[in-house]
Amino acid sequence: MRVTHDGPSRVAEPGEGIGLDELALAARNHAMPLEALRYDITPAGLHYILVHYDIPYVEPDSWSLHVDGRVDRPLRFDLEALRSRPAVSLPVTIECAGNGRAHLDPRPVSQPWLTEAVGTAMWTGTPLAPLLREAGVADGAVDVVFTGLDHGVERGVEQDYQRALPVAEAMRQEALLAYEMNGAPLPPQHGFPVRLVIPGWYGMAHVKWLTRITVLSEPFSGFQNAVAYRLTREEDDPGQPVTRIRPRALMVPPGFPDFMSRTRFVTVGEHELTGRAWSGQAPVTAVEVSADGGTTWAAATLEAPAGRWAWARWRHRWTARVGRHELVVRATDATGDVQPVEQAWNRQGMANTMAQRVGVVVS
Amino acid sequence: MRVTHDGPSRVAEPGEGIGLDELALAARNHAMPLEALRYDITPAGLHYILVHYDIPYVEPDSWSLHVDGRVDRPLRFDLEALRSRPAVSLPVTIECAGNGRAHLDPRPVSQPWLTEAVGTAMWTGTPLAPLLREAGVADGAVDVVFTGLDHGVERGVEQDYQRALPVAEAMRQEALLAYEMNGAPLPPQHGFPVRLVIPGWYGMAHVKWLTRITVLSEPFSGFQNAVAYRLTREEDDPGQPVTRIRPRALMVPPGFPDFMSRTRFVTVGEHELTGRAWSGQAPVTAVEVSADGGTTWAAATLEAPAGRWAWARWRHRWTARVGRHELVVRATDATGDVQPVEQAWNRQGMANTMAQRVGVVVS
Repeated sequence: MRVTHDGPSRVAEPGEGIGLDELALAARNHAMPLEALRYDITPAGLHYILVHYDIPYVEPDSWSLHVDGRVDRPLRFDLEALRSRPAVSLPVTIECAGNGRAHLDPRPVSQPWLTEAVGTAMWTGTPLAPLLREAGVADGAVDVVFTGLDHGVERGVEQDYQRALPVAEAMRQEALLAYEMNGAPLPPQHGFPVRLVIPGWYGMAHVKWLTRITVLSEPFSGFQNAVAYRLTREEDDPGQPVTRIRPRALMVPPGFPDFMSRTRFVTVGEHELTGRAWSGQAPVTAVEVSADGGTTWAAATLEAPAGRWAWARWRHRWTARVGRHELVVRATDATGDVQPVEQAWNRQGMANTMAQRVGVVVS
Repeated sequence: MRVTHDGPSRVAEPGEGIGLDELALAARNHAMPLEALRYDITPAGLHYILVHYDIPYVEPDSWSLHVDGRVDRPLRFDLEALRSRPAVSLPVTIECAGNGRAHLDPRPVSQPWLTEAVGTAMWTGTPLAPLLREAGVADGAVDVVFTGLDHGVERGVEQDYQRALPVAEAMRQEALLAYEMNGAPLPPQHGFPVRLVIPGWYGMAHVKWLTRITVLSEPFSGFQNAVAYRLTREEDDPGQPVTRIRPRALMVPPGFPDFMSRTRFVTVGEHELTGRAWSGQAPVTAVEVSADGGTTWAAATLEAPAGRWAWARWRHRWTARVGRHELVVRATDATGDVQPVEQAWNRQGMANTMAQRVGVVVS
């Protein structure tokens, strides 16, 4: 099938409302309602989900995983063989690289995430590195390509969904071929029967419906690495690749909401604000809360996460006074990366960590 | 807490794009990706979800259900007591009354559903009628009000979510107090620990996080019955109440999609189109498919559903010829209600069953 190239992604005109195409993606995919920040492990169905094409329907008995390319011994596993290997369970926070996109101005036209495309699951699977060692990664190998069973067209390019990792990342001991999420087989929308989990990376790297792992001796030039998921300001600038998750903190909006505006109504007096913070670059070192739209900040208390790759709970006492307020929260990680209060725009709306704002009416 | 009334719901200006308020609802709530029409029972996390306010966090040990109002013997059940009563499992298709809203022109401003706010789950619970008989519904009782633990503001009215059913509906043998969905405890977003399931009705009647059942000797005048969920054309017209689900058929879009437009690419030749059809009014009697945008129609084959209240699978052979096509599908039920091809507008975008259209490129 031949498909002509549609050119670069589109940026909305100033003031342009969200289109039916963006809405269709927002209806299919979904974010995590912020009140689910209460849970250490996000219950099934509340974790964010992004599917580029369709959710493939996979018969587990006919599924297999191939390991090929620049390896000494190409391998093939069926599901039973994979499940009989040593298993590890790891709590991992995964966030979409496009999270925050729809708050950018002008708005990159794609899946229109606001701030909550995130979730933390307990992933169970078998470590990838021993399996690659059994296959024997050839000297001079550069990238490892993960191919999913989802198939579609993106900016004119027909493709199976494919993403590559540098060999050193694929060989990390935390990289898993996961077949369970929160103790149950993967749901169809999360990659049944097997997906990659590569802790610390944005979601695009955790390839779902995984069917092939291919070792390359040159850098992978496929669409999702070379064209999509780039930090770039201009159409013709290849930019930098999107890799690890930058720091972000989110709060459970306090009080109760208005249906349509999601404005919060809070009673006067003492409240505990709480939420989660995470970073795939380095541990979170600070969470700060502002009750005046970002003018003044106070340090929140940070608790130990369930593991290096899971979000950490934070808490902060806030004395609510009558009036309208804007609560803002921001995280900093050990690399010194701190969430900006103003936007740092890029053309595809990637890794936009602009701080969450929650409008509150106190009475 | 005092909240001023914001007036009626808003209707978008002609050509007005979807706003950030509508997008925030679309990001929190989610529809069922259409490829999930393949499953008799929708897997957890793919079923549509609409939450008016926040998902309440409920400790099962402190939860209780009260039965009060015009009854001879007010009752109170904890979760253990409810689970020890006779249990029934029933496959039920539930659809949001606002499904199809965002295709209306002008667009009612609310949760902006396209066509897929639906799902079919296996609900397990205890029948409601025997419990009401134990309480002793007083002579002259009219409505039964179901109160959830979700709390918020809607068009200026602060409220616990409450919906009433006529006594005769509440006493139907299929009405369940459900505590399991697909064989597992209800997920938080579907009403943990207990929700009402009232087969045949649109979703607003299946009250989640149920905590109180109150028998009234007069018609219930609460917001969700008297103001929201009405079929009305004018602001000041109370209109008719939204009740049972009108007939609808949906198809699994064939071929594979373009990421942004969701246009489908299909190879030339024979294809089996398939999907589901349902109606809460009466059994579905016909499903018809058009491959030319609704000009000509052919009858699809209809299979028996898993139960009276579950959707039925339909199948249709289609010979795809090179070019652009618009596939349309419509259902008819035993009341004679047939899905319209053109919109039948109403002010709140309720029960809009305008037929699904799927754009296809064949090459």
